[in-house]
Amino acid sequence: MNVNGKHYRTIWVKEGDDRVVQVIDQRFLPHKFVIEDLTNLEEAARAIKEMHIRGAGLVGATAGFGMYLAALEAPQDSPEAFTAFMEEAGEILKATRPTAVNLEWAVQRQLEAMAQADTVAEKVEVAFRTAQAIADEDAEFCRRLGEHGVSIIEEISKKKNGEVVNILTHCNAGWLAFVDYGTATAPIYEAHNRGIKVHVWVDETRPRNQGARLTAWELGQHGVPHTVIADNVGGHLMQHGMVDMVITGTDRTTYTGDVANKIGTYLKALAAYDNGVPFYVALPSSSFDWTIRDGVKEIPIEERGEDEVKYIQGLLPDGTLAKVLLTPADSPATNFGFDVTPRKYVTGLITERGICEASEEGVLGLYPEKRK
Amino acid sequence: MNVNGKHYRTIWVKEGDDRVVQVIDQRFLPHKFVIEDLTNLEEAARAIKEMHIRGAGLVGATAGFGMYLAALEAPQDSPEAFTAFMEEAGEILKATRPTAVNLEWAVQRQLEAMAQADTVAEKVEVAFRTAQAIADEDAEFCRRLGEHGVSIIEEISKKKNGEVVNILTHCNAGWLAFVDYGTATAPIYEAHNRGIKVHVWVDETRPRNQGARLTAWELGQHGVPHTVIADNVGGHLMQHGMVDMVITGTDRTTYTGDVANKIGTYLKALAAYDNGVPFYVALPSSSFDWTIRDGVKEIPIEERGEDEVKYIQGLLPDGTLAKVLLTPADSPATNFGFDVTPRKYVTGLITERGICEASEEGVLGLYPEKRK
Repeated sequence: MNVNGKHYRTIWVKEGDDRVVQVIDQRFLPHKFVIEDLTNLEEAARAIKEMHIRGAGLVGATAGFGMYLAALEAPQDSPEAFTAFMEEAGEILKATRPTAVNLEWAVQRQLEAMAQADTVAEKVEVAFRTAQAIADEDAEFCRRLGEHGVSIIEEISKKKNGEVVNILTHCNAGWLAFVDYGTATAPIYEAHNRGIKVHVWVDETRPRNQGARLTAWELGQHGVPHTVIADNVGGHLMQHGMVDMVITGTDRTTYTGDVANKIGTYLKALAAYDNGVPFYVALPSSSFDWTIRDGVKEIPIEERGEDEVKYIQGLLPDGTLAKVLLTPADSPATNFGFDVTPRKYVTGLITERGICEASEEGVLGLYPEKRK
Repeated sequence: MNVNGKHYRTIWVKEGDDRVVQVIDQRFLPHKFVIEDLTNLEEAARAIKEMHIRGAGLVGATAGFGMYLAALEAPQDSPEAFTAFMEEAGEILKATRPTAVNLEWAVQRQLEAMAQADTVAEKVEVAFRTAQAIADEDAEFCRRLGEHGVSIIEEISKKKNGEVVNILTHCNAGWLAFVDYGTATAPIYEAHNRGIKVHVWVDETRPRNQGARLTAWELGQHGVPHTVIADNVGGHLMQHGMVDMVITGTDRTTYTGDVANKIGTYLKALAAYDNGVPFYVALPSSSFDWTIRDGVKEIPIEERGEDEVKYIQGLLPDGTLAKVLLTPADSPATNFGFDVTPRKYVTGLITERGICEASEEGVLGLYPEKRK
């Protein structure tokens, strides 16, 4: 998508130096647009763990490129030593964020792809191509997902005789969370591009404010009308007919339809259900967990440091970034990063293959190869 | 309650000068403890409107004292001119915050009380005594409410064999929102004082962070164990058995049991309902609206400025207070201050007369004099 009129992806190999991977360092958005060089496994792992980049697809793509950077660092003189190093690298990357299933998926895909090659040189080449393929597929899946999802917005627009369709989203499942297009935003961008009038209610998404910082920024860069709201507001808006649909992304969705997503998603799903507002979740197939049956009980929920709640970063009047303390200095805080929305509250899943019910039957109907 | 070991109310007449009313200016908490002098109607109205003070009971008490300060300014040479001035003053005070019913109630009580007096001097004296009475009753009602509400906590504590009772609250319905004790906090303070083990999950309560700033501060000052959480977290906690009950305050509750409270309360009520967690609302009778039947449709919901969402104030590392911008500078924001929780989701109302169902029958059972 566009930044100041120029097309960007969120991750790419540096022009002229394919030993360097570049990412948009999202910690400084929307106030500063910073590009970061990743040159080794450690930097890639830190970029994921400390959330220079974040979002289901981009975490996966960065893990993919992280494996490639690890392959450059690995012992080059023995395939066995190389593979042992790469397995260790995979563990390091998987440990950075426990909830995002794309991490495991990208690491596994790299390990399996490299296992097919014989020499270390070939393995490194495979790691490069696989990293690129993961990123390209992520972008392509998001694009397709937008084409499927736009039908829902089109239908609401028709029912409203072309009046503005109000869509609420939580966190950032935009192109900044993927390689391009995004998931929750893909149908919105597609609708906007087709001339359908849309307006997005952007949950600010405490504690890290991915909505206020990232979703608002990328919608603004693309010219999509939007309004930032506190996370507390969505229920009131839905009670009063000001939301036509909710679309969110997901960090992990079980094949039975339970949706792990940014903390607070569950509360919006409850409000949507209570007010008859359709609640959709958009995801590429890499975000499905094909092993877990009960999402509420079984999906591990990441707990992050309390300082993300107690402090917040923003722009001072003099244009510098600063962190300010919000709470009494000695009050403790707890910081669960995700929650799970039971399938009951999810109207449908929008995938690269089409739209399905949030149920085992629905999901396996679209992905019959996953039937056991 | 105590501040650094010294007892304070939130509003009082200055010692040695009964033409000056003093309040704790809550805009600087928890970082600075500032006392503000109010010397006339305009200052009292500004303190309410710009939220130097806030909270249902304290807004009422400040309106009561604001009417007294207006009485000191009013024309003293003619009862008719005095009364006209006071009616105008009442309108000014009522216009400061549209959702809080205590405002109207306090203004009306002052006007009716002054109407009983003949001379202007007597009217001024009545205004003084009425303002004091409103404040004293507020404190006394909150104290009683705590005595009633503690029974619920005691029962949960018994069921848990004395293990910690985890209570979630939203916004600040603490003593800072009233004259003393608070409403939602009154049963908690009472339980803590009786040696029942309690722990409070404090919703930070965006956009103004009354939970993170005020509730955390006052619980900390009183030694009550608590943890600050983002507003998004409560649903997850309830799903996983980490909340034994929810208690909130209210800015206006209909006699039929619909509860207007700080934006986001409705979302917590939905989550409580979904997980079988009891959801109580604590209020003195001054917060009942005896005229409105359907709270969702009829209670006016205040919209505040977008800057409260876009900017936030906190403490810089050098100990100074600063406001930082959280969103893209050109993204708009919307700021509804309250929402309405339908009675269906409210387990019970805790009042100064006892606990009742959130229904017309329940409320009128406690307040039979309000039956029409």
